[in-house]
Amino acid sequence: MKEFIFKNLSDAMKKELIKRNAVKTDKLYSKVKNICTTVKKNGINAAIRYAVKYDSFSANSILVSKKEFIEAEKQIPLQLKEAIKSAYKNIYKFHEKQLPHGYGVETTKGVFCEKRFMPIENVGLYIPAGTAPLPSTMLMLGIPAQIAGCKRVVAASPVQNKINSAILYAAKLCGITEFLKIGGAQGIALMAYGCSNFRKVDKIFGPGNQFVTTAKSLISIDPDGCSIDMLAGPSELVIIADDYANPHFVAADLLSQAEHGKDSLVILLTTSKELYKKVVLSIQKQLVVLPRKKIAKAALKNSFCILFSNIDQAIKFSNDFAPEHLIINVKNPRKYKDKIINAGSVFIGQFTPESAGDYASGTNHSLPTYGFARSTGGVSVEMFMKGVTFQSITLMGLKRLSKSIVTLAEAESLNAHAEAVKVRLK
Amino acid sequence: MKEFIFKNLSDAMKKELIKRNAVKTDKLYSKVKNICTTVKKNGINAAIRYAVKYDSFSANSILVSKKEFIEAEKQIPLQLKEAIKSAYKNIYKFHEKQLPHGYGVETTKGVFCEKRFMPIENVGLYIPAGTAPLPSTMLMLGIPAQIAGCKRVVAASPVQNKINSAILYAAKLCGITEFLKIGGAQGIALMAYGCSNFRKVDKIFGPGNQFVTTAKSLISIDPDGCSIDMLAGPSELVIIADDYANPHFVAADLLSQAEHGKDSLVILLTTSKELYKKVVLSIQKQLVVLPRKKIAKAALKNSFCILFSNIDQAIKFSNDFAPEHLIINVKNPRKYKDKIINAGSVFIGQFTPESAGDYASGTNHSLPTYGFARSTGGVSVEMFMKGVTFQSITLMGLKRLSKSIVTLAEAESLNAHAEAVKVRLK
Repeated sequence: MKEFIFKNLSDAMKKELIKRNAVKTDKLYSKVKNICTTVKKNGINAAIRYAVKYDSFSANSILVSKKEFIEAEKQIPLQLKEAIKSAYKNIYKFHEKQLPHGYGVETTKGVFCEKRFMPIENVGLYIPAGTAPLPSTMLMLGIPAQIAGCKRVVAASPVQNKINSAILYAAKLCGITEFLKIGGAQGIALMAYGCSNFRKVDKIFGPGNQFVTTAKSLISIDPDGCSIDMLAGPSELVIIADDYANPHFVAADLLSQAEHGKDSLVILLTTSKELYKKVVLSIQKQLVVLPRKKIAKAALKNSFCILFSNIDQAIKFSNDFAPEHLIINVKNPRKYKDKIINAGSVFIGQFTPESAGDYASGTNHSLPTYGFARSTGGVSVEMFMKGVTFQSITLMGLKRLSKSIVTLAEAESLNAHAEAVKVRLK
Repeated sequence: MKEFIFKNLSDAMKKELIKRNAVKTDKLYSKVKNICTTVKKNGINAAIRYAVKYDSFSANSILVSKKEFIEAEKQIPLQLKEAIKSAYKNIYKFHEKQLPHGYGVETTKGVFCEKRFMPIENVGLYIPAGTAPLPSTMLMLGIPAQIAGCKRVVAASPVQNKINSAILYAAKLCGITEFLKIGGAQGIALMAYGCSNFRKVDKIFGPGNQFVTTAKSLISIDPDGCSIDMLAGPSELVIIADDYANPHFVAADLLSQAEHGKDSLVILLTTSKELYKKVVLSIQKQLVVLPRKKIAKAALKNSFCILFSNIDQAIKFSNDFAPEHLIINVKNPRKYKDKIINAGSVFIGQFTPESAGDYASGTNHSLPTYGFARSTGGVSVEMFMKGVTFQSITLMGLKRLSKSIVTLAEAESLNAHAEAVKVRLK
């Protein structure tokens, strides 16, 4: 963990620290583009070929069968089942309040305007399967889709043959019956373009590796593709802590984010050099017993600590950085809540570890990285819906609007626009 | 206007009609990519060079001066000023109801989760300037940004020297003081990447030509770029009409959309061959006097009419097509409102022309094209904000969650995540 002292931190240095390292290479890009184009052209057969090549796909069917769903529920250990159910309950409870409500306004007498929110009909949820299965991601994407009322929800994950029972059980809780065993760029392309055996979706959600993210970016700018939730980069955590913070808690939180991947970014902003020293010692101790210590160690190499003279300065840096996760572990942490402008999810107080939000507190863990927290929030129910506007105008209402419409249309040289009003008032 | 009879319409034919023609070419793509990369690298100087080359830019400054804003208000004709004010009022009235409200939930005793909506700090609004200035687009983007409370709102439009007074007056009403005189791909790139003299924005909104749209797509998938609202394609209008509809109204509406551009797509879905015949005759008559008849005629060549045996079938086709604009001009039009699933903006009844929504009724005219209405709504206040989640957990609350978090974290082989809870409960 590198250490920078704020007083020595020039604007240029600060800018450098805020900037993330883009990992996209031209080689990766052309490889993924090739996969997407081929799947777009040749459909399911191409997707299967890539799945065999990259993920040793060997299943009989590309979709999970009813029997597999039933078996999964039998196989899953009871304690894990209970943990998933309990997480499901909290996530549902928090997300159901996100259902947007339509409204109507009579903007001018006789001019009735309305907005209605409707679920997106077909959505695809990508569940990564790297070193371990991620039932929590299944919940984080499946629950908002379920609350939104999407008609068809397809989950997708790369597998050799069988999908992990915890993921299937979580999918079942979310009412999902269509589960695609093809992941990676080929899974994204198949969901985005569809083929004769597999109907395309309208929007794809979910995190993934560089292949998945690059594929999502490509299909999102192809008019024949589909929408996406956001582009996910490596995980990020900023902790703001002072003398008051327990260094073991801070160390454990930093490690919990560092274990995600070698490219994870964990940052400590503190007003206390003492705390920093204690945290470094505690990290060294806690690292020893961690199964993923190699990954965590590598991630810590990219990470850093900045010493500030007060908490407000640390908040300012965090707002400029716009982290995916932000922990505020200082005395009177609530005091700083209103000062936060850019962050994906914020954890306040010493007993609020980031891992609570990853699993069971209720908030979503699919969050904006790479500074996109400046413009985007985490996955939410509204992202599974769209707002459609309706209007209905009476003859008198149209008369009242006519002068404004005709004048503006003519000023914009769009005379047929004006005529569409005039013809009705003749 | 080609004519297809539904009974002869095979599924393949229907699919073909629903599919839009992608216009993106590799040549355009590499040209725009080159512009974006150069502006990213060389900043303002590169942007100005392209503006001089493509838009004959010759102004002294890249930004509109205070004096220019004041002069614009003096120069604008009174009637146009009143039209803009009146449109502003209705658009504001409709959009202010879109302000999303945060909420809090205690998901488990001692676990307090909250969602807050915050304005995006820096936004860029692109105002196209093709054959004519578009003050209406300035209102449609500027008003939601103003309601959302974005701290810095930059407008951008390609100009030689001075920006049209109606656009500047509309900008002023929206509280905009920063107006960039550089448009096209170079304007988008400058807003997305920024430079030493011009701070980058977090999200770009607004329609544009192929250069602008391609640039928006490129900067949206570059982690160093920024978010965008959506990718806008050629304008689209579907009209569902029956015997009851006045053919002159239908013809005028079709023409109002056809005059936008040669690639505009206007479609008539009807249950009445009689109506179709009358509409064709009326189009021919109305075309004669239209200033933009050449454009409208070209657009009508791509357009078509389908004869259905009932309105429900027409609605079904429209839902599959997902048009930007949909007019329902049939007997008892309200009856069909609940059946609409995919559309950008819907106009109900014979006195509700699409041009009302383009200017003054109150709804937004920046809408999803190319079938993106399946997954996205038009520009709205929420798109200028982001939802940030907060959580605060007590020691007892964390104890209650701990079993679920630890079990799930261990099942996902993320032991440091489990440790961050355990260390707090020791």
